[in-house]
Parts: sequence; C-alpha cells; structure tokens
Amino acid sequence: MEIITVELLDRQYTITIGDGAWDQALACAEMYDKVFLITDENVAGLYGSQFSYPQYVMTPGEEGKTMETALAILDEMVRHSLTRNSLVLALGGGVVGDVAGFCGSVYMRGIDYVQIPTTLLAQVDSSIGGKTGVNTVYGKNLIGTFHQPQGVYIDPAVLNTLPKKEVVNGLGEVIKYGIIGDPDFFEYLKNHLHELLELKPQVVFDVLCQCCSIKAQIVAEDEKDQGERKILNFGHTIGHALEAVTEYKGYTHGEAVLIGMLYEARLANALGLLPGYGYEEIREVLETFDLNWSIQHLPEEAIFHVMMQDKKNCDGQISFILPIQPGQVQEMLLTPEQMRRWWRRIVS
Amino acid sequence: MEIITVELLDRQYTITIGDGAWDQALACAEMYDKVFLITDENVAGLYGSQFSYPQYVMTPGEEGKTMETALAILDEMVRHSLTRNSLVLALGGGVVGDVAGFCGSVYMRGIDYVQIPTTLLAQVDSSIGGKTGVNTVYGKNLIGTFHQPQGVYIDPAVLNTLPKKEVVNGLGEVIKYGIIGDPDFFEYLKNHLHELLELKPQVVFDVLCQCCSIKAQIVAEDEKDQGERKILNFGHTIGHALEAVTEYKGYTHGEAVLIGMLYEARLANALGLLPGYGYEEIREVLETFDLNWSIQHLPEEAIFHVMMQDKKNCDGQISFILPIQPGQVQEMLLTPEQMRRWWRRIVS
Repeated sequence: MEIITVELLDRQYTITIGDGAWDQALACAEMYDKVFLITDENVAGLYGSQFSYPQYVMTPGEEGKTMETALAILDEMVRHSLTRNSLVLALGGGVVGDVAGFCGSVYMRGIDYVQIPTTLLAQVDSSIGGKTGVNTVYGKNLIGTFHQPQGVYIDPAVLNTLPKKEVVNGLGEVIKYGIIGDPDFFEYLKNHLHELLELKPQVVFDVLCQCCSIKAQIVAEDEKDQGERKILNFGHTIGHALEAVTEYKGYTHGEAVLIGMLYEARLANALGLLPGYGYEEIREVLETFDLNWSIQHLPEEAIFHVMMQDKKNCDGQISFILPIQPGQVQEMLLTPEQMRRWWRRIVS
Repeated sequence: MEIITVELLDRQYTITIGDGAWDQALACAEMYDKVFLITDENVAGLYGSQFSYPQYVMTPGEEGKTMETALAILDEMVRHSLTRNSLVLALGGGVVGDVAGFCGSVYMRGIDYVQIPTTLLAQVDSSIGGKTGVNTVYGKNLIGTFHQPQGVYIDPAVLNTLPKKEVVNGLGEVIKYGIIGDPDFFEYLKNHLHELLELKPQVVFDVLCQCCSIKAQIVAEDEKDQGERKILNFGHTIGHALEAVTEYKGYTHGEAVLIGMLYEARLANALGLLPGYGYEEIREVLETFDLNWSIQHLPEEAIFHVMMQDKKNCDGQISFILPIQPGQVQEMLLTPEQMRRWWRRIVS
C-alpha cells in the first residue's frame, strides 16, 4: 500500500493506493454522522453492495453530468438530513467524482467528501485536486468549484473490470505526466507501455503511484489553478477542441488528449521549442496506440472557435502548454492569427 | 473614509466605508476584462444608472433567492462571455449579495466579486465574510459556498432611501455586535440608539465602522465558520425558528433576531449564566424597538422542530450562543428535552 500526501494551504489529505484501500475509505467514513454514496449504474452493479449507505445512482457517462443531476442529488442529501458532519462518498469515474464533489461543495456551504475512483482516468487525474463541475448547454465544467476531498482511495484491482477503451482513455493522462513532469517516468513508460495496456499488476501499481505523486505535487503548488497547474493542460488545448467539435462523440477524453499531445508536440517542434529528436520520441510513444491520428477532416474554424473560448486563455491569446523536451514543458500564448498560420503546417 | 482590512488565510481584502466608496468600487472594477452587475428592481431604479455594465436585475426579496435565479444569472454570465478575469458586482441588499456571491463562486470554479451593499443589514453583516447561498424548498441557504469578496464598498448615504422597517431590520445585527463582542460599543449604542434610528450621519458612520471591524475580526479568526464565528449566531437560534414557523412572513430577519436575542438573554438568565442586571440592560436596549415581543402564540412544537434542524447543532443538541454579560457570550448546548423544559419558563 502506498500513501501519498497532498499538501494544501490549510490542511493535507492522502491518496491511498493498493489492495486494502477501500477498507481504509470505509474506516474514514466511520468518523461521520451520516454517509451518502454517489455512484453510477455501471459501478453500482459491480461494487454497490460493498457500501451499505443511502445512495444516488447516476446515469453513466457525460450525459449525466448536468445541473439537473446535481440538484436531484442535493434534494436527496436534504431528504436524508445530511448535516455539516456528514460525508459524501464518490464511487466511480470522473463524472461521478466531479458531480459528487460539486454537490459536497455547495451543500450547507461545503461538507466533506471522499473520492473512490474506479477508472484509470479518475485514479490518475480527476479524483485528485479538488476540481468539481457540471456541464451546461454552453460548455463543459462552466459551473463548478474547487473543493478538495478528504482523501482519495484507489484500489488498482477494479481496473480489471474496465473495457479496454476505458484503459486507453486513462493512458492519455498517464503519458502526459511523463511528458510534462518527469523524464525518468517518460523513459519507464516507453519501456512498459505494453505491460501497462495488459494491466500487469506491478506496472499498474507503479504507474498509479508515479502519476498520483506528480499530480499531488502540482496541486500542492497551485491549489486554485492560477499558475503551475496550467502545465496539466498539455494536449488539452487541441484535445478539448477535438472533443467539442465532434460533440463529445468522436473521441473519448483520453483519445482526444493523446491526439492533442501529438499535434501540440508538432506545434512545439514547428515553433522551434522542441528539437526533432524530442518530437520523435514523443510521437513514437503516442503512436503505440491504434488511433485515427488524422484531424485534417475536422472543421478548422470550429476548432479555432473552441480554442479561443478556452478558460485558460489570456488577453485574447490562446494558451498552449508545449514540450521543450520529454519531461519539461512551458506555456506559449499564440494570437488567433498566429494559430491559424501554424495550423495548416501541423495538421498536414 | 474608513478602511477596514479582513485578513484571510491566503489574502486580505478591505471594507471601504464613506462618501466616495462607490468610486473606489468603480476603480477596482477597471482592473477586470469584463464586469457584470447583479442587482434588484428596487436598487436598479435608484442607482442602476451609475453603473454602465451589463446587468441582471432580480425580483426583490427573499422570493428571488432561488437556484432558478442563480441558474438564470449564470446563463447570462456565459452569454456575456465572462472569463476567469471578469468581475461580478453585487449591488443591493443581502439577497442580491448572497445570490451574486454564489454565482461568482461557481462560475468557472470561482471568479472575483465585489459587494456594494445598499441596506443596513447587508452593510454591517451579510456583505462581509463570504457566505453565499440560495434557498431551496427545504430551507434557507441549504445550497451555498464560502467565497470571500475582493472588496466591500459601503456608502452610508444610501441608507437614507431605505424604509424605516429596513433600518430596524439592520439594527438587530448592530445591537448583536454590541452584546457579543464589545461592552464599550454596547454602551455607545445604549446612548445613541435614537440618533441611529434617525440616521444621524456621524452616528451611522461610527456604527458602520464599529460593526464592520467586529465582523472583520471574527471572520478572520474563523473563515469557514468552524468555531469562533458561531458567536454571530446570538439571537439566531430562536430568531431563525420564529422566521421559519411564520414562513418568513411574520417578521423581517432583523425583527426576528431582536426578539430572538431577548428570549436567548432570558434563557441565559434562567440558566444562571447572565446576572439579572445584565439581562435588564439588554432588555432595555432591545425594547427601545416597538415590536410585538410576545411569542407565546406561536406553535411550540414547530419552533422546536426548526431549532433541532439547525446547521450549527452538534450530536443532536441545540446550539445556543448566550450572553454572560453585555459584551461577552458563550456557546451552550441543550438537549431537546432540556430545551422543552426551559421554554415554558422563558416565553411566559
């Protein structure tokens, strides 16, 4: 069992990774007067019976991530008379975690919640760092809060019940950590990617520990996403645009990030930030995945439009996090005109 | 002009009180890429033209303090393409401040907002401290956040346009500050209450400065309402129950707090915490107000029921903040059985 600490401004919490992690979550829940579980239909079917708490079971997937769902959950929380000393348990993937965290953050001005992530994406990324959110018709996560969990409890074994596509979905973020934060970890991933895809237990455990500790460190440095945390956005400026222009049906988030990272690495190379051999190293790892890498067929103007709306932008310039070498990135702001000029070159 | 600093864990903000305060607010707004004003119909009619920003005008009063209003405002904020570098201006009373603060806190995980309170209640209490909230059918402020403003700008002159009832509404909280935190201020109030009711400018200014600085200090000691801040609850355990059982139509908040303070002082006296002469002093000040002080006619069980649901309760015990002497209070927890026993004695 590995325990990683996330240092916050006014407190700390731990990420527990390993076999008995869920038992630890249950022990933590003991300390509260009431516990309310939020999960989705898929997860409830597999693991719901392990948690004997009143629960709200969401429709699985991004469609359920709405304000209507959040309000329905809050209603249930009131009906069950949750107090300020009660706990919300988020059992599921990123959507469950985001919605449950949001509900926890606004119920009585914020009550405690705990993340029990069941997908690779949630385990390495979304369950850590306190970002919560729901989608509106205007965009993803436009409504949300920062509300750090009291703890994150990760049982790697649950990944074995994930469809392959869901594993790949998480690997986008895993590889991102190698590129943005740690050259050694990038090397390790290069050498163990196939074992990881086969979910070899020791490799999965090592990767979870590495990713969580990189994320924990970045979150500690920038709890509210005002600086350092931006680097987590590598692959996401283009990746998010790809998701949006295909109405979130063309790609999973992880696929979009993998493709986004390829084109952002290409952009870094074109701009002279990333040397050719560095680009080739990144490209090689990414292309282990059997994806449709071409994005030439997608509507250019729509992509630009999404990129120009990004929350991370500054003064009308588009923010890109670009690799300088595997293991190191920097922010680069491009005007829409500059972006247009480079776009043709990188997508062709 | 007086400037009072509120020290937070990770930053500070100021409360500006005086003649040119609104100009300062406008100067602060200059620093943002976009500004969005939230106000209500009454205030818009009087002062809306002084603010040339896109605005959302709420229905006045507690009825407008719903999630539906918040969602409508958030929609407008998206439509106006507010970014993370945009500002929400809350111009109005407590309801406007609570809803605007809530919208600011959940838009893109929290953007800056500034309070320009226009009622006495908002100026001395609700605009300071970062409590935001909306009501649900189940109760007041069940959904909300802690989101501290970037600044509070108070022009005392606007109080002259308030109906007398609204002034009294704010005076409940003013007197509360004297009783919970400062014997000298309590003395001052005893001697200047009539001038205050007549809104004599120097007295109003002095009182605003005193109240804001007491509140600022309490907020600094307990940003998230986990301890010290509880003392602000004096008069509110009973006061809130009176409001609730009369469906928020029987009393204004300030009236309910004035009456609540009287009965809680009586409870303190009955419990032997507050000596007779201290009780008499408090009673005398409170009874300056021409209110229907009797609460014997209200349904006892319904009052108990509300008190038992209070967010501040602990382990099924009801939390009371009780005066020991004018200027000092302490928390006392009563079981429902104890409460029932004392109730008859204090209301008769």
